[in-house]
Amino acid sequence: MIILGSTGSIGVNTLNIARKFNLNVEVLVAGTNIELLNKQIEEFKPKKVVISKKEDIHKINHSDVSFGEASILKVIEESNSKTVVNALVGFLGLRPTLKAIECGKKIALANKESLVVAGKFIDQTHLSPIDSEHFALWYLLQDKKISSMTVTASGGSFRDYSLEKLKNVSIKEALNHPNWSMGNKITIDSATMTNKMFELMEAAWLFDTRKLDAIIETKSLIHALINFEDGSSTAHIANASMQLPIAYAILGKCDEQVLEPVDLIKVGSLEFRQIEKERYPIWQVKDEILNNLDLGVVLNAANEVAVSKFLNSEIGFLDVSKITLEALEKFSGVKPTSIEDIFEIDKEVRSFYDT
Amino acid sequence: MIILGSTGSIGVNTLNIARKFNLNVEVLVAGTNIELLNKQIEEFKPKKVVISKKEDIHKINHSDVSFGEASILKVIEESNSKTVVNALVGFLGLRPTLKAIECGKKIALANKESLVVAGKFIDQTHLSPIDSEHFALWYLLQDKKISSMTVTASGGSFRDYSLEKLKNVSIKEALNHPNWSMGNKITIDSATMTNKMFELMEAAWLFDTRKLDAIIETKSLIHALINFEDGSSTAHIANASMQLPIAYAILGKCDEQVLEPVDLIKVGSLEFRQIEKERYPIWQVKDEILNNLDLGVVLNAANEVAVSKFLNSEIGFLDVSKITLEALEKFSGVKPTSIEDIFEIDKEVRSFYDT
Repeated sequence: MIILGSTGSIGVNTLNIARKFNLNVEVLVAGTNIELLNKQIEEFKPKKVVISKKEDIHKINHSDVSFGEASILKVIEESNSKTVVNALVGFLGLRPTLKAIECGKKIALANKESLVVAGKFIDQTHLSPIDSEHFALWYLLQDKKISSMTVTASGGSFRDYSLEKLKNVSIKEALNHPNWSMGNKITIDSATMTNKMFELMEAAWLFDTRKLDAIIETKSLIHALINFEDGSSTAHIANASMQLPIAYAILGKCDEQVLEPVDLIKVGSLEFRQIEKERYPIWQVKDEILNNLDLGVVLNAANEVAVSKFLNSEIGFLDVSKITLEALEKFSGVKPTSIEDIFEIDKEVRSFYDT
Repeated sequence: MIILGSTGSIGVNTLNIARKFNLNVEVLVAGTNIELLNKQIEEFKPKKVVISKKEDIHKINHSDVSFGEASILKVIEESNSKTVVNALVGFLGLRPTLKAIECGKKIALANKESLVVAGKFIDQTHLSPIDSEHFALWYLLQDKKISSMTVTASGGSFRDYSLEKLKNVSIKEALNHPNWSMGNKITIDSATMTNKMFELMEAAWLFDTRKLDAIIETKSLIHALINFEDGSSTAHIANASMQLPIAYAILGKCDEQVLEPVDLIKVGSLEFRQIEKERYPIWQVKDEILNNLDLGVVLNAANEVAVSKFLNSEIGFLDVSKITLEALEKFSGVKPTSIEDIFEIDKEVRSFYDT
């Protein structure tokens, strides 16, 4: 397989699965964590390696190293692998997803932005999402009449902060996720609840429904619920590790133990909370977005710019949501009719904010 | 359909389903709640009615009323209905179950004792359990490799009592179930956890597994979980009403709303507890019983006698468990090889305690 983003948390977990099930790794694509990448090369012996920056090439212990987006697209095209694991972060993941589809590869997709910004133009025939929530929904799907679907949210770094205190939070506090450690971008998206908005949009594309909602489950052990017409619900429960969705996305099915089962007696209790619109302003426009998925590319571009500004100490935490809400209003009329439009709109939104 | 036990909580809920889906009720069988039975007769206009006692016949507003076990078996045999809902309490429910099977009827089985005492001899081809837990397990079953199954327990009337205080509890306290109101027998069985032991034995027959356990979920909203080999679990969540299992047991499937969905945000939290062997002595022999389901008839007979003595103020609450554990030891060698043996062993155990 090809792993795009091998040194991030999804990438590392994918390699854990590759190790466990003795899967071939043909290409590793990574950013700037050279030390870890070299260790991965030593263990998994990929044929090719692609990194972000030209100036790092000499540090890589491999004879076939290239760099940049064009190289990523090229290795996908030239590879024999049937599966591409796309764990790139942000809009950058879109072109590789499109290329993998074009080449008839199976895509294990952790890059949510691909569906958020361009779900309309993505052929899902060979696509499996790597996301606990969508995995849980898929896992629960049975031949019964579904009423709606609910994914759960951790509530992010600030779920227990007073609203007043939110104004002056530091970057360090924002990156301190209550339940686990992930990349910076997704940790901020989790704190603003934009990550959950993305997941609802993904679910809309994956399961062809708009009857979607999210609730906070503070321990992140229940990942999603399906609510049936008869009035009952089913829930998927698993320890919070991406290895399970990854195993299914790659292997199709899995009858071996991948995770320790959840011991509910040790867990003791579970707590559920509402997603408050004051704490998570993106929730004010949830229905509007779900009813107009064309806004995905706008939301994503504005959010990428805003999160990046926050992480560079240029704006405060609450400004992130302010910018995304503003952008959604300013660009509310977008109507992409081709994949080229997506790249155009993305550029337009970015250039408006990226000054 | 034929409803055995129409005035109990299962019977009343079955009639709610009959009303909702406009189902024909051919026979009503009830005990001594004459007032409710007459109301049911007026609304559902059954062809025949069977009650417990001869002396009550003149109080029933119906032209075809008979009484006693023989009459129950006769109406099953003579009826045109394809479905028998068996909500009789205790060992008394066994013969009607056998008769319904003999007549090729579909059985919606709320009488757990039928499987507990004689699972070995019961043809399940046309049998559906009416029990939230087994319904939940069935609901969750999918084509994945199952590791084990867990049903939940409310913990019964005394789950929050100190062990010391348990010695002197009154009948009234024992009948005060924390989550709902049921018949006296099952409320006591819930307080001793014998009801849950029965459910595990039922599940062993229904799902052909011994990898079964139970945990306490204090709000009775999660009814059962299936634990898969991959390490994840699925849970069935529904408000605690028997109408859902009843609807499925009778209709086979159901795409209409039967219950209000559970609103987890309103619920706020769920709590899980271990089933302590000190509080629930039957749990000391759980594995022994699951590995020797022949003990079902012994457990049931001793328990029926003991619960009846407790409800007549002849023994204390803790004596109920004491008697059942004693009986399990005394009659540990039983090996029924025919359904006649079941009736023999039942009689033997009863006569030993029923003095």
